[in-house]
Amino acid sequence: MKLKVATAVLSASLLASFALKAQEPDWKLSDEEMKKASQIYFDRCAGCHGMLRKGATGPNLEPEKTRKMGTEALKAIIHYGTAGGMPDWGASGELTPEETLLMAKFIQNDPPPPPETSLDKIKATWKLYIPPEKRPTKPMTNRNWKNYMGVVLRDVGKVAIIDGDTKELVNIVNTGFAVHILRMSASGRYMYSIGRDGKVTLIDLWMEKPDVVAEVKTCNDARSVDTSKYKGSKGDFLDKYAVVGCYWPPAIVTLDGQTLEPLKIVSTSSYAYDKPNEFIREARVASIVASHHNPEWVINIKEAGQVWLYDYSDPLNPKIKQLNAERFLHDGGWDSSKRYFLVAANMRNKVVAVDTEEGKVAAIVETGNKPHPGRGANINHPKYGPIWCTGHLGENTIACIGTDPKGHPEYAWKVVKKITLPGDGGGNLFVKTHPDSKYMYADRPLNPDKEAQSKIYVIDKDKLEVVSELKVPEKYLQPRTVNGKEVKPRGPVHLEFNDKGDEVWVAVWGNKLIPSAILVFDDKTLKLKKAIEGDWVRTPTGHFNVLNTQKDIY
Amino acid sequence: MKLKVATAVLSASLLASFALKAQEPDWKLSDEEMKKASQIYFDRCAGCHGMLRKGATGPNLEPEKTRKMGTEALKAIIHYGTAGGMPDWGASGELTPEETLLMAKFIQNDPPPPPETSLDKIKATWKLYIPPEKRPTKPMTNRNWKNYMGVVLRDVGKVAIIDGDTKELVNIVNTGFAVHILRMSASGRYMYSIGRDGKVTLIDLWMEKPDVVAEVKTCNDARSVDTSKYKGSKGDFLDKYAVVGCYWPPAIVTLDGQTLEPLKIVSTSSYAYDKPNEFIREARVASIVASHHNPEWVINIKEAGQVWLYDYSDPLNPKIKQLNAERFLHDGGWDSSKRYFLVAANMRNKVVAVDTEEGKVAAIVETGNKPHPGRGANINHPKYGPIWCTGHLGENTIACIGTDPKGHPEYAWKVVKKITLPGDGGGNLFVKTHPDSKYMYADRPLNPDKEAQSKIYVIDKDKLEVVSELKVPEKYLQPRTVNGKEVKPRGPVHLEFNDKGDEVWVAVWGNKLIPSAILVFDDKTLKLKKAIEGDWVRTPTGHFNVLNTQKDIY
Repeated sequence: MKLKVATAVLSASLLASFALKAQEPDWKLSDEEMKKASQIYFDRCAGCHGMLRKGATGPNLEPEKTRKMGTEALKAIIHYGTAGGMPDWGASGELTPEETLLMAKFIQNDPPPPPETSLDKIKATWKLYIPPEKRPTKPMTNRNWKNYMGVVLRDVGKVAIIDGDTKELVNIVNTGFAVHILRMSASGRYMYSIGRDGKVTLIDLWMEKPDVVAEVKTCNDARSVDTSKYKGSKGDFLDKYAVVGCYWPPAIVTLDGQTLEPLKIVSTSSYAYDKPNEFIREARVASIVASHHNPEWVINIKEAGQVWLYDYSDPLNPKIKQLNAERFLHDGGWDSSKRYFLVAANMRNKVVAVDTEEGKVAAIVETGNKPHPGRGANINHPKYGPIWCTGHLGENTIACIGTDPKGHPEYAWKVVKKITLPGDGGGNLFVKTHPDSKYMYADRPLNPDKEAQSKIYVIDKDKLEVVSELKVPEKYLQPRTVNGKEVKPRGPVHLEFNDKGDEVWVAVWGNKLIPSAILVFDDKTLKLKKAIEGDWVRTPTGHFNVLNTQKDIY
Repeated sequence: MKLKVATAVLSASLLASFALKAQEPDWKLSDEEMKKASQIYFDRCAGCHGMLRKGATGPNLEPEKTRKMGTEALKAIIHYGTAGGMPDWGASGELTPEETLLMAKFIQNDPPPPPETSLDKIKATWKLYIPPEKRPTKPMTNRNWKNYMGVVLRDVGKVAIIDGDTKELVNIVNTGFAVHILRMSASGRYMYSIGRDGKVTLIDLWMEKPDVVAEVKTCNDARSVDTSKYKGSKGDFLDKYAVVGCYWPPAIVTLDGQTLEPLKIVSTSSYAYDKPNEFIREARVASIVASHHNPEWVINIKEAGQVWLYDYSDPLNPKIKQLNAERFLHDGGWDSSKRYFLVAANMRNKVVAVDTEEGKVAAIVETGNKPHPGRGANINHPKYGPIWCTGHLGENTIACIGTDPKGHPEYAWKVVKKITLPGDGGGNLFVKTHPDSKYMYADRPLNPDKEAQSKIYVIDKDKLEVVSELKVPEKYLQPRTVNGKEVKPRGPVHLEFNDKGDEVWVAVWGNKLIPSAILVFDDKTLKLKKAIEGDWVRTPTGHFNVLNTQKDIY
C-alpha cells in the first residue's frame, strides 16, 4: 500500500515536473538579467515605446501582445529593425546577439514598475557649485560670447562651447547622459543642457572659461528644458526660472533659473483628448517653448494630445490652460511673429498651430507622414507671406504652412508647398534657416539609404525647391578600424546658423569610438569654410548658437 | 533503488505539503470572496482609507502593514471601531460576523486594481429623459418652488422634494446610491444630486411634479457636484454647466448643465504640495463650490493638499490654477462676502482661507481637532464683524474665524472664539445659520455618547455660546422591533433653513428598516412646529433649500 502510494506520488511528481518544463516559457529571466535588460530598455526603447510599453511613436509592447509574437520573431525585429522606423539594433552593432536575445525575452515579461520621484528626491540631487553672488557681474571674456556655439557630444555626456567667431574650443563641460537639447536664458548669459537622464546643467557664459555653476537631476528620463523669457506689465521674469519636461515620471519640473533649485513638480498624467479618452499614466512632456509675450511656457503632452499653456508668474501655484490638440505631440517651434506655436503630432501626420495670444488651437494641419520639425524653419515668401516648414520622418517632403491669417488669410493654416527631396524615403530630422539667408537646409540622417544619409539639401527660399547640396567630405563618412573592429560613422545631422546668419554649421554624428567633425559652411557660396576637428569631437549631434537660441531665430 | 527514490520523493512531497500548510496565510480568499469583499470595501471603507488603501481620513491599510497586525487584531478593530473615528461595523450590526472576518482577511490581500474610466464610458451611461426643448418654459406649479426642500433619503437611493411652505411631499425621485449632497443651478430651477456611486441626477423644479430629466454615472465613487453661477463681463454661464468631483477615478468631470452630457474629464492625480511630495494616484476631489464673481469652480484635492481654481469659460480647454494649501482638504463654504472660500484640512486640524479674487491662499488657520464645517456658518458679530464658524469631529468646540481683513483686520484669519459644547467628545458634523436668525445650530451625530448624539445645540450669535437645545421627541430615537430584530434609529443630523430664515429643519437619520421624520422647528420659539412623517421617510440625512443653496446662504 505504502509502495503504491509512493509510486503514484513519484509518477505524479515526475509528470508535473515534465509538464512544468514543457510549459515553462522561454522568456523567463533571472533578476540579474531583468536588471540589465531594464537598463537597455530604458536607454534604447523607452523613448518610442514608453516605460510602461503602451506605445507612442513606436507600437505597444505589452506582454499580451509580445508573448503571442514569440522570441524568434521579436529577435528578428530587434536585429533588423522595420521599415516603420524601428532601428536595426543588432545589424548596426549597437546590441550584441546576446543582448538582442535578452531584449526579445525581456519584452515578454511584465514591465518592472518604474521609479517614482518627489520634489524632495529631486532636491537631494541638486548641486550649486557657484552661487549667483560669486559669479561675474559682467562678461569676463573678450570673446563674442553671444556667438558661442554649444555643441552636444551626445554619447560621451558632454557639451563643448565653441567660439563661433574664431572656431576655437572654449571649454568642454560634463553634462547629463545623451544631452537632448540646449537652451539659453532670456539674456543669453546662461546655457541649460538637459540630459536624456533628466540631469539639467547650468553653464555661465560670462565666466572667462564658461563652466557648470549648478546641476540637478530632475527625473529619470527627460527631453526638454526652457527658460522664462517674459518681461512686461505682468512682471520681469528674465533669467528667473527654468522648466524641465520629463518623460518619466511624466511631469513638469520648475527650477530657479539662477541656481536650479527645484521649486515645483506638476504631474502630466491625464486623460487623452480624444477617443478612447482613457487615463494615461505615461503622458509625457515632449517639447517646451517659452513665450516672449506672456509669462508662459507652451508645454506639449505627447500621449494626451494636449498643449498646456503654463503660467509661471506664481511658480508655486501655476495656472495651466489645458488645450485639446492632437495625439502624440512631439517637437515644434514658433512662427516668425512668435504668436503661434507649431507642433508636430507625428503619429497623426499633422501639425497643430497654437494661438498663444488667444489661448486656443488655431488650426490642425495635415502635412505628411510623421512630421519632425525640430523647431522648423520660418520663411517670408514673396507669394505666400510668412510660412513655416517641417520635414518628415516618413516621406521625402518638406511641408510649408502659411502662418499669417491677417496678412495672407488665403494661405493661413494650409500647406502652401510640399518640397520634394530627391530619391525615396523620409528620414529628415531637422530643417533650418535664418532671416538673412537665401536658403533653408535639411538633413536626412534616418533615411535607410547610406547615400541619402550623407546629404544636406539646400533649398531656395523663394523657389521652395532643392537647388544644391552641401558636400560633406568623404573622409568623415568612411568606416575606420578601431582595435581591429570596423566602426561605421554616422552621417551629418542638425543644422545651426551663427549669429550673423552667414554660416551654417553641420554636425557629423560619427561614432563615439572615433573623432568626428563639426563642419562650417559659407551660407553664400555653400563651400566648406572650416572643419572643426579634434580628439574631443565625439558624436556631435546638435549645436545651439547663443543668440539664435536666446531669440528663437529659426 | 526505484523504491528508495520513490520514498524520498514521497517524504519530500509530504514535507513540502506540510510546510506549505504551515506557511499558508489565513487571509487567502477565493475569487468569489474577493469580489464580495471588494464591494463591501468600496461601500464602507474606501471613503476614508482610499481605493488603493494609502490612507487619508483613515490610516493606511496596505498589506505590508495589515499582515503584521494579523487577522484577529484586524477583526477586533472592524468589529469594535476605534476612538479615532473608525465606526463599530460589527457591534453596530452593519456587518455580520462573517463579513467582519471576510474584511479582516481582505485587507491583508493586495488591493485589486480599481476600475478605470474614460469620457466615452461616461457618455455610455448618459440618459436624457426630457430634452431642454420639451421642458416647461415657465414654472408649471403654483407652489413656492424656491422654498422646496430637497431631502436626501440616503440608504434607499432617493431624494424627496418637500414643499417648504405647506410641508407637503411633492415627489420622490430615484437617484444614485447614498446621495452625498444636492446643489441648485444658478437660477434655482435645476436640482442636481450626486450619489456615492458617482451618478448625477438632474431634477427640473419647474415641472408640475418635479422629476428627473437626465442622469449620468460620472465615476465609481463621488462626493461633490456644483453648477456654473457666473454672469458678467466674462460671459453668461447661468445654468450652463455642472461639475462632479470624483473620488475614484480621481477626476473632475464637466457636464452640460441642461442635459448632463459629459464634456470633459480632467485627472486630479498629482504631486502632494508638501513633504514627501510624492505622486498621488488617488488624489481625490473632496468639495467643490461655484464662484459668483468669476466663471470658476473652487475644487479641493484632498490628498494633494491643493485647491484648484478651475476656469470653466472654455469648458473643453479648462484653465486651472493649482494652489498649494494643506493636506487632506475636505469640506467648506464661502465667507459672507463670497470672496473667500474656507475649507477644512481635517487631518491637519486647520482651515484654509482661499482668496478667489487674487487667486491665492489668504491664510491657514489652526482651529481644533478635525474640523468638519459642512459649508460652515457666517455670522455678523457686533465685536468681531463678519466671522465664519466650523465644528469639529475630534473635540467639543465650534471655532469662529474672522473673515474681514479690510473692516476688522485685527480679527482676520484668527480664531476669535471657541464655543464649547457640553460634555466630552466631538462628533459634530454640521453647523448652520441664516442672516435673519439670532441662532447658529449644531448637531453631534458622531459623538460616542447616545445622549449627545440626540442633541441639536442652539448657539446665540452675539454671545457665541450655547443657550438652548432643540428637543427631538424621544419616540424617534427609541429602538423598534422589525421582523423580531431590534433596530436602533440614529439621531438628528444636518440642519437647513427655509427661504425666509424663520424655520430650521432637522433630519432624524433613523434606519432604513423603519420610517423616520424630518422635524421643523420655529427659529424664534425653538419649538417643534411640524414633524414630517410617512412610510417614505427613510434615512433622511440632509436637506437643501432651493433658495439658500442657489444663493449660498449659510
